[in-house]
Amino acid sequence: MVHTLDYGVLSTISTRTDIFNDDDDETLPSSSSPPVIPFGNVYSFVDGPCNKSTGIPYLYGSSMDQSMKDVTSNNVVSLTLTEASSSRDGSKNSCVVQQGGWGDPEMPTCARVVITGKLVRVDPNNNEEEEEMEFEMAQTSLFQRHPSMSYWPDDHDWFVSKIVISDMWLLDMFGGASILDVDRYFSIDLGLVDVVDVDVVVKEEQEKSRMMMMMKRHLAEQTKMTVNLHGF
Amino acid sequence: MVHTLDYGVLSTISTRTDIFNDDDDETLPSSSSPPVIPFGNVYSFVDGPCNKSTGIPYLYGSSMDQSMKDVTSNNVVSLTLTEASSSRDGSKNSCVVQQGGWGDPEMPTCARVVITGKLVRVDPNNNEEEEEMEFEMAQTSLFQRHPSMSYWPDDHDWFVSKIVISDMWLLDMFGGASILDVDRYFSIDLGLVDVVDVDVVVKEEQEKSRMMMMMKRHLAEQTKMTVNLHGF
Repeated sequence: MVHTLDYGVLSTISTRTDIFNDDDDETLPSSSSPPVIPFGNVYSFVDGPCNKSTGIPYLYGSSMDQSMKDVTSNNVVSLTLTEASSSRDGSKNSCVVQQGGWGDPEMPTCARVVITGKLVRVDPNNNEEEEEMEFEMAQTSLFQRHPSMSYWPDDHDWFVSKIVISDMWLLDMFGGASILDVDRYFSIDLGLVDVVDVDVVVKEEQEKSRMMMMMKRHLAEQTKMTVNLHGF
Repeated sequence: MVHTLDYGVLSTISTRTDIFNDDDDETLPSSSSPPVIPFGNVYSFVDGPCNKSTGIPYLYGSSMDQSMKDVTSNNVVSLTLTEASSSRDGSKNSCVVQQGGWGDPEMPTCARVVITGKLVRVDPNNNEEEEEMEFEMAQTSLFQRHPSMSYWPDDHDWFVSKIVISDMWLLDMFGGASILDVDRYFSIDLGLVDVVDVDVVVKEEQEKSRMMMMMKRHLAEQTKMTVNLHGF
């Protein structure tokens, strides 16, 4: 999921603490102890180029964005990924809401992973060769997998950052969430093939599942019967 | 979006504060001031039945889930919705990542809204007729639009809750986010038609955009040229 998905929701501790400055609401904390408010925002990410998975989520953000303002006060963030956001629709049946089907984004079998850690800027200008190379890899990968990013306006102070992972919370099956061992997570080899092959495979799979989906839909409409697309 | 989307990410203040209990990391707060950690989790929701929009997000959660445990300590939550999660793929071009296209989930034109407020349980058993009716409406709507929910295991202490909205942060265009006026938000009439009509319209639109998408893809493959699907 960290390698294949396009985007997730980045949760931060909000610095917009004036949201609840409403004297009418007696159930909220007084102004002497401002409420702690979470804020979730949509972020595209990569963990490397198509043919290499580092396991580290790299983000491309602007200091003008609310989330990045929040991070200057508290850089502990969570990045939430869900299989429901996969663009390969049809293949993630456990995520698809449908009459007579079991699929739902809230179903445990529609996997989600919450990555918690500190958001740290990857700075190419601090005279450390390793960080400069990491920045080059990350920015190139972001632009490769999110082509529009390279056109985003220059005056928005874009920068590359990464999540230094401290915790991974995974729900992918009935029976409750698992806490992943971060060291073991980083030791996994996805066995990725060459970038061109991956693209071809993804495209073929996508086309195939779309065709299947459409055929079944048309069949269902013709016969006015519900065809179970979920394989249950 | 609050009426049409299926799921969002619910951000809470995590009660799993032991994540950063690592003495090796000198940059983190000492144990005397535990770090404040955000946690984002996937939640399906509705704002009413298909043919009625209340504007209030209703959730179906279990007290066994991490988010609901968090809420018992701090019930201030954010629910993050993105047009990228729309199941009507093809129609949200501004969200679709593609070579030579502008679309991306992080693009401002791929709209996202962050709803912040207190998560409050809607309890049918507290002898208030209004709340009992609200519960009936909410649970019926959840089961109507998320059919699998009605089959979820009885022993998981499922309950209906709603977000009492205090703030709405919307990014849907270049030029930065807007803070919506909550009273004005609730005064909007979506002019929804009968439930059957809505379903038909959605299905037709979905089929149409899928057909367009596939035709263009096939065309592009045949001619080995990039066809711009984004209309730019």
